[in-house]
Amino acid sequence: MPEPLHALIPRLREICGADGVVTDPAARRTYESDGITYHAAVPGVVVLPTTTAQVAAVVRLCAEHRVPFVPRGAGTGLSGGALPRTDGVLIATSRMRRIIEIDTANERAVVEPGVANLDVTRAAAPHGYYYAPDPSSQQVCTVGGNIAENSGGAHCLKYGFTVNHVTGLVVVTPAGEIVRLGGKAADAPGYDLIGAFIGSEGTLGIATEITVRLVRAPQKVSTVLAAFDTMDAGGEAVSAIIAAGVLPAAIEMMDALSIAAAEAAVACGYPPGAGAVLIVELDGPEADVDAQFDEVTRLCRDAGAFGIRTASDAAERARIWKGRKSAFAAVGRISPAYIVQDGVVPRTALPQVLRDIARLSAESGIRVANVFHAGDGNLHPLVLFDDAEPGAGERAAQVSGAILDLCVGAGGSITGEHGVGVDKACQMPEMFGPDDLETMDRFRRAFDPDGIANPEKLLPTPRLCGERPRVNKGAHPLVAEGRAELF
Amino acid sequence: MPEPLHALIPRLREICGADGVVTDPAARRTYESDGITYHAAVPGVVVLPTTTAQVAAVVRLCAEHRVPFVPRGAGTGLSGGALPRTDGVLIATSRMRRIIEIDTANERAVVEPGVANLDVTRAAAPHGYYYAPDPSSQQVCTVGGNIAENSGGAHCLKYGFTVNHVTGLVVVTPAGEIVRLGGKAADAPGYDLIGAFIGSEGTLGIATEITVRLVRAPQKVSTVLAAFDTMDAGGEAVSAIIAAGVLPAAIEMMDALSIAAAEAAVACGYPPGAGAVLIVELDGPEADVDAQFDEVTRLCRDAGAFGIRTASDAAERARIWKGRKSAFAAVGRISPAYIVQDGVVPRTALPQVLRDIARLSAESGIRVANVFHAGDGNLHPLVLFDDAEPGAGERAAQVSGAILDLCVGAGGSITGEHGVGVDKACQMPEMFGPDDLETMDRFRRAFDPDGIANPEKLLPTPRLCGERPRVNKGAHPLVAEGRAELF
Repeated sequence: MPEPLHALIPRLREICGADGVVTDPAARRTYESDGITYHAAVPGVVVLPTTTAQVAAVVRLCAEHRVPFVPRGAGTGLSGGALPRTDGVLIATSRMRRIIEIDTANERAVVEPGVANLDVTRAAAPHGYYYAPDPSSQQVCTVGGNIAENSGGAHCLKYGFTVNHVTGLVVVTPAGEIVRLGGKAADAPGYDLIGAFIGSEGTLGIATEITVRLVRAPQKVSTVLAAFDTMDAGGEAVSAIIAAGVLPAAIEMMDALSIAAAEAAVACGYPPGAGAVLIVELDGPEADVDAQFDEVTRLCRDAGAFGIRTASDAAERARIWKGRKSAFAAVGRISPAYIVQDGVVPRTALPQVLRDIARLSAESGIRVANVFHAGDGNLHPLVLFDDAEPGAGERAAQVSGAILDLCVGAGGSITGEHGVGVDKACQMPEMFGPDDLETMDRFRRAFDPDGIANPEKLLPTPRLCGERPRVNKGAHPLVAEGRAELF
Repeated sequence: MPEPLHALIPRLREICGADGVVTDPAARRTYESDGITYHAAVPGVVVLPTTTAQVAAVVRLCAEHRVPFVPRGAGTGLSGGALPRTDGVLIATSRMRRIIEIDTANERAVVEPGVANLDVTRAAAPHGYYYAPDPSSQQVCTVGGNIAENSGGAHCLKYGFTVNHVTGLVVVTPAGEIVRLGGKAADAPGYDLIGAFIGSEGTLGIATEITVRLVRAPQKVSTVLAAFDTMDAGGEAVSAIIAAGVLPAAIEMMDALSIAAAEAAVACGYPPGAGAVLIVELDGPEADVDAQFDEVTRLCRDAGAFGIRTASDAAERARIWKGRKSAFAAVGRISPAYIVQDGVVPRTALPQVLRDIARLSAESGIRVANVFHAGDGNLHPLVLFDDAEPGAGERAAQVSGAILDLCVGAGGSITGEHGVGVDKACQMPEMFGPDDLETMDRFRRAFDPDGIANPEKLLPTPRLCGERPRVNKGAHPLVAEGRAELF
């Protein structure tokens, strides 16, 4: 352990209690990475505070000694945002798991940051409510982590991201001040720092109390599975649905390769011979859902759909979703290793970008499986390779990086919902000019002049990306094991 | 004109052209206030730029000479956010009125800041779309001004505020840099500075190009008018509707005094003897609206409604809305002068706060009419007085201030949609502690270290509010003339 950290241990123990400070090397090693395991660093020390006051005291101590700190929720993030510092303090929120209040009259819940996403819904469900943002890791990932990454999920299309569901925060700033932003009301006077804080990946401090909207559980949910000969035909159905003014809760699409992988893994029984499948989920008042349901199936048929299956109860729905939900893990059946990419394109650019990805794949001889949120143009291409083959990881990383270039070139973005973290910090200049990045950096420095709050995440730095921060594609052997629960 | 400004005139003329710089005193006087006329100051000079580059050049010139600037849209704001500086440059966006793009495939419009709110809808309507945020001044107020104030409207309940409808901005910072925030996609990597910029009241710079969501025009709109004996009974209906899981596009409420005023002014024909009327508007797919409509009328009847009227075409709807929309101006018929207050309370606190307002009114002998967005707890109490009576304005201002205290005390806020501006800057410490305000100030200074961007708006300053910024209620003779189009 670095010397300056060593001196802090007794004071950290005073703040968090002896059992709230982890110094044992083997125990610290369990925190060495988050959901992308190819970035790893053993934290200098781990603290497990239980209150806002403890978090603030830890951060003040770090600020006093100019020691960096990294916040961490469940560690399911996919951009290395929770990558620890060997010279720093890892502040884990795992002991801040209280659901403070379920206030159905105002349709709000107040929770601590370590509460699992799905536990908010579990607490609200008996009252007929749920918490809408649903990353696929929702059984595990925390609300605090969701705030750091502005997490999405399959149902973002209709319900928006985490930022659309948080109305109040108590935040410990990088100076260790406790600040209250917003509350239960829909809008507060002054700067909307909640919006800026959500998605700030721990660089502006730590949220210690979170007020979220609760959404009324829909009266009815209906799900349609439709198969198409080609991705283009599936894409046409998506465009037709949106153009008709229908706003489904989710529109998910899978290509032939990901269908084959899912079939091999879980025998999901999707229509044989499908070049693409589309899952469209509708929710809302019964009358509304029924009317839209007829329209969606008609539009799918018009676009050449076959093998249409529908579900209106939870068991049937689970069967339809099974293939989609297992797709990422299932790819492990057909490839020893793969990279999960996360990019966004304007919905109208989807067909062209998918064709370009197919061309890239054909030219490089590297297989790419596509599983994605079609409704909002959020792609998750899986770039397959054999990690036993020398150089294969690097070639796959190049294809993966080239896919991001396609996204940016089409007017899209380098990340849809997995965040920038350490993984894509050096790609920020692909999207933002020097004035834009300088503006963000000025904002960061306003709160963290000494750069101790999760340094070297989110924004490019010379140390990380070279003197002139630039694209650094393919630097890492991007290997992800199949972890179905993370997607 | 102050000397330092005088020296800038030739350079401003080079930037904006001779017809883009207003120096004539009579012409400058027309800009002396915005929608609250009791704050007034003649601007030192007015510029009328036509491009982002011109705005940036003007701001850079101001920065170079440390001259303050104030942005201005249509001047319909109700918190004095566009109050000019005699020692500064007023940057009016009235010549930046281009609708750059209507992109229905991606459901976005790109506009310049001087475009009137309703003109976005007018341009989108032929394609079956509209722009959702609808302040009552929407025929006049600009999209740029809406961004400065994060404007709302009667339909915020379902559709959210301006911040929920902007996905991209080109911004000129207080240093004169041109920065692009976001774009057409729903979410961008990095800090969400769009969220923080919207509602920043000109203190972080000027938006010169704005990308907004377009919303599909609903298949059906139905409107219900229901009368109740008491405000409590009307409030009960509101609670029942929300508790039933219905989310109307709007729920508006008026009390007996405002009904009487509307009746006297426009003979709106609301049910005689009503102690309260409720207007509930439903929109969406036809099947959905019809089902919800039946439920809403039933819930109103259960709460004791009488004289229920319904509308399903535009003409009938206009008749129902006529009384509500004319209410503010109509109050001019029953009182020589009045103050328009704007506060928010959690919806559950509405009945208690309304009773407290009635008590305040009874104790002070000052009449208060209530017209408000019941669904989201956004009150607009009208405090009536006779400006010919010595001291009456001050007493009314005290009651108006006490109403805000009630709102804050109930867990609400000092403004719902009119903003802080110069009018409520000194009341920010009622809601925010020193650390909270210091955090906001640090954020402001990160972008505007010299304090030239709309100074003395939004945040309290010692000069404005005394050494220890504190509440400064009743300092102004708050007189508002009836201007129906503003509410």
